Amino acid sequence: MANTSVIIRIELNHEEIKFGDVAAAISSLGGDVTSVDIIRSGKTASIRDITVEAADSDELKIVEFLGRQNGIKLVNVSDRTFLAHLGGKITIQPTLPIKNRDDLSRVYTPGVARVCKAIHEDPKKSYSLTIKRNTVAVITDGTAVLGLGDIGPIAAAPVMEGKAMLFKQLADVDAFPICLDTTDTEEIVQTIKRISPIFGGINLEDISSPRCFEIEQRLAEELNIPVFHDDQHGTAIVVLAGLLNALKVVNKRIENVRVVVNGIGAAGVSICKMLLGAGVTRLVPVDREGTIVRGATYAYPMWQWLADQPQVEDVKGSLTDVIQDADVFIGVSRGGLLHREHIQSMAPRSIVFAMANPDPEVDPEEATPHVEVFATGRSDYPNQINNVLVFPGIFRGALDCRAKEINEPMKLAAARAIASVVTESELNSQYIIPSIFNDQVVPIIRKAVIEAAIITGSAQRIPPEFR
Amino acid sequence: MANTSVIIRIELNHEEIKFGDVAAAISSLGGDVTSVDIIRSGKTASIRDITVEAADSDELKIVEFLGRQNGIKLVNVSDRTFLAHLGGKITIQPTLPIKNRDDLSRVYTPGVARVCKAIHEDPKKSYSLTIKRNTVAVITDGTAVLGLGDIGPIAAAPVMEGKAMLFKQLADVDAFPICLDTTDTEEIVQTIKRISPIFGGINLEDISSPRCFEIEQRLAEELNIPVFHDDQHGTAIVVLAGLLNALKVVNKRIENVRVVVNGIGAAGVSICKMLLGAGVTRLVPVDREGTIVRGATYAYPMWQWLADQPQVEDVKGSLTDVIQDADVFIGVSRGGLLHREHIQSMAPRSIVFAMANPDPEVDPEEATPHVEVFATGRSDYPNQINNVLVFPGIFRGALDCRAKEINEPMKLAAARAIASVVTESELNSQYIIPSIFNDQVVPIIRKAVIEAAIITGSAQRIPPEFR
Repeated sequence: MANTSVIIRIELNHEEIKFGDVAAAISSLGGDVTSVDIIRSGKTASIRDITVEAADSDELKIVEFLGRQNGIKLVNVSDRTFLAHLGGKITIQPTLPIKNRDDLSRVYTPGVARVCKAIHEDPKKSYSLTIKRNTVAVITDGTAVLGLGDIGPIAAAPVMEGKAMLFKQLADVDAFPICLDTTDTEEIVQTIKRISPIFGGINLEDISSPRCFEIEQRLAEELNIPVFHDDQHGTAIVVLAGLLNALKVVNKRIENVRVVVNGIGAAGVSICKMLLGAGVTRLVPVDREGTIVRGATYAYPMWQWLADQPQVEDVKGSLTDVIQDADVFIGVSRGGLLHREHIQSMAPRSIVFAMANPDPEVDPEEATPHVEVFATGRSDYPNQINNVLVFPGIFRGALDCRAKEINEPMKLAAARAIASVVTESELNSQYIIPSIFNDQVVPIIRKAVIEAAIITGSAQRIPPEFR
Repeated sequence: MANTSVIIRIELNHEEIKFGDVAAAISSLGGDVTSVDIIRSGKTASIRDITVEAADSDELKIVEFLGRQNGIKLVNVSDRTFLAHLGGKITIQPTLPIKNRDDLSRVYTPGVARVCKAIHEDPKKSYSLTIKRNTVAVITDGTAVLGLGDIGPIAAAPVMEGKAMLFKQLADVDAFPICLDTTDTEEIVQTIKRISPIFGGINLEDISSPRCFEIEQRLAEELNIPVFHDDQHGTAIVVLAGLLNALKVVNKRIENVRVVVNGIGAAGVSICKMLLGAGVTRLVPVDREGTIVRGATYAYPMWQWLADQPQVEDVKGSLTDVIQDADVFIGVSRGGLLHREHIQSMAPRSIVFAMANPDPEVDPEEATPHVEVFATGRSDYPNQINNVLVFPGIFRGALDCRAKEINEPMKLAAARAIASVVTESELNSQYIIPSIFNDQVVPIIRKAVIEAAIITGSAQRIPPEFR
């Protein structure tokens, strides 16, 4: 389906093969040569970069063909995705140039000593005199990266760098990726605590469940800066934002709906918590073994917590049992679990958020005729539930008020803020959630988060416009 | 002596005091009002930023005076040094903008998954597809910061940020400061190992002796990226560079001179090692308790190592004893240890590097008439021995050839390279070392370091121009 643009660098021996023949062969294999640059040219050989548009499936065939030809040496193969990552996706820049000795003596020795002394005497000054004020660590151990799973710390770096780009572009937050070469809970907690002084916040990322719960909780307790596991809370916040608007579309109230959440891992637990915080009174959490039943006993502390909540139903059953008569289905599990008949068994005017990646819990084509509001994690359908909507604004707010933590009221405020970006007149079943490129999103989350932080005592600084 | 430029923000009540009177009072106290900006103006009061040039000693008097006046509210006092540090001195920037959904799908999900997978299959690709290729951690525990000592991790941050600025401006290296909230050797080693995957090199900074030796050695052994404790080796390299040129000025050969090194801490040990590596045959290391004597037994492993070297003299004595007839004195200790008579007791055409900070081991005014070449760590005398000359070029070279380590031959090559920037015709007793703003320095160190890394097998990549 997807087309890729590949750049292939070849060394061509003119005596053995002509470029025209190469181009013809590429075309016959389904590729379109869109540009050619001669990098170096000699008497008998030349080096060229050939840009080829091709279907993903044809790309490999073309490259393999070129590799087999006499007179062609394959130097390098890149595509635009790989090129975008070449050399890394962030740089570190000085805020001012050091033009002469005078400048040097201010930003470095001997002048810097006075600045160090001021912070030593009053560590709070680190918020004005160092990068701490605006800097977040994006930290992973590489155990739960996208759909790839445990690929290790350095292979996760491209995601962390991408996140750092989004932090900067969307919310002017300076974010630096840290990839941890350990998967031990205690070691992760200690390491993050030890490197924490320079950071104003910690964004945990792609750490597998259930370790992610303890790691986040311990750090939140032991550090005085906000700690936020995006896979849990980023997803939960944007789900709640979407749900608040979807309920308006179907004209149901949150207190009355019956909600099935499937997949009680990192994201699922946080979604359940937020739903309860937002007023859901009839919740059915489901995992592979079936429903989590009120009053039952579970080994995972988070499942047990759910089983202890009065709003959780005491029904035993499988997903396909309990989805009957549900008003809302929220899936953060895996693809292809549900089919048309299951969706049809839901209550009238149903809401389905099928967010498994890359294939949703139910095929969108199969489900949409039978639901009122349908959302996925994908960008090729309406209503994309994307946590890129959340983390930039949440941290912008938390940093600006020097929040000690990101508590539940701050998360709820962020969800309501995101929902509020879609106005009553814009709202419809195809548009329940704003685009990540909507530039109202970050300021409105920031404002809501700061207000909630001030009210709950998390804010250690009141920004001027809130005084 | 030094003049500071202070910016004082005051709120002025026009009914109680006139600005003209304020300006006159500042002048009478020794200050020069160089600019005034009205920030806000109301009916009865206005807020102004007044820039005042004043001697350091007068600054406080002026601020105190303003604080006492009726009708003036002191809002804030900053000086240009503090202003340069405001908000931190580095930022993190994306290398390309995310303009639309297409861009996003390349740098983030779903496109990034292919890049992660490629690194997972071949971790070496992290050097081309992440920031690892060009990124160095500048790591401290805040125990030996400038002349300030153990001021803790966050108070050290302004120095680390300054270093990151210099890395970028002088050698286009991306450097990120890490301030460790532990002073335990084992914890420091483990923490750095665990955060190492994203970094192409580790610059240790301002970690106190003797822990710095074990920390650096263990990391060098256990990591496959270069580890460099700048306080040890940066200083040693630039000292050797200066000494090589100073010996040319006095027309003596390194094999023949008797060298006294005073202060056998982090820098002193590395200086002694490099001097031996460069061919010194008569070395006298001295610390507070007197000389380190060949054949004697010492508790510190580094002192013992020195006592085991055949080039170390087996003379017992104090600094003032052994400085007699020395050709070279190198001090990395403390101010005011030596006086005219000691310098006069040295061999003819002596060389003195008095690098204690901020006061040299001997007063420059007292010493210079009696030595041939005199150098300090200070910028207000000729021949400043400044390790800013070293670390940018060393790491530029090490990163470009993906060095596994920075070994002694690479350090020696760097020292010779720095010395070579001063040409025969330029060389004189007042000019033995280039300025840090000399843009030949970094490329020439880089080249020498890469050549040495290739020869010694430390290089894991041969840059094109060395093939």
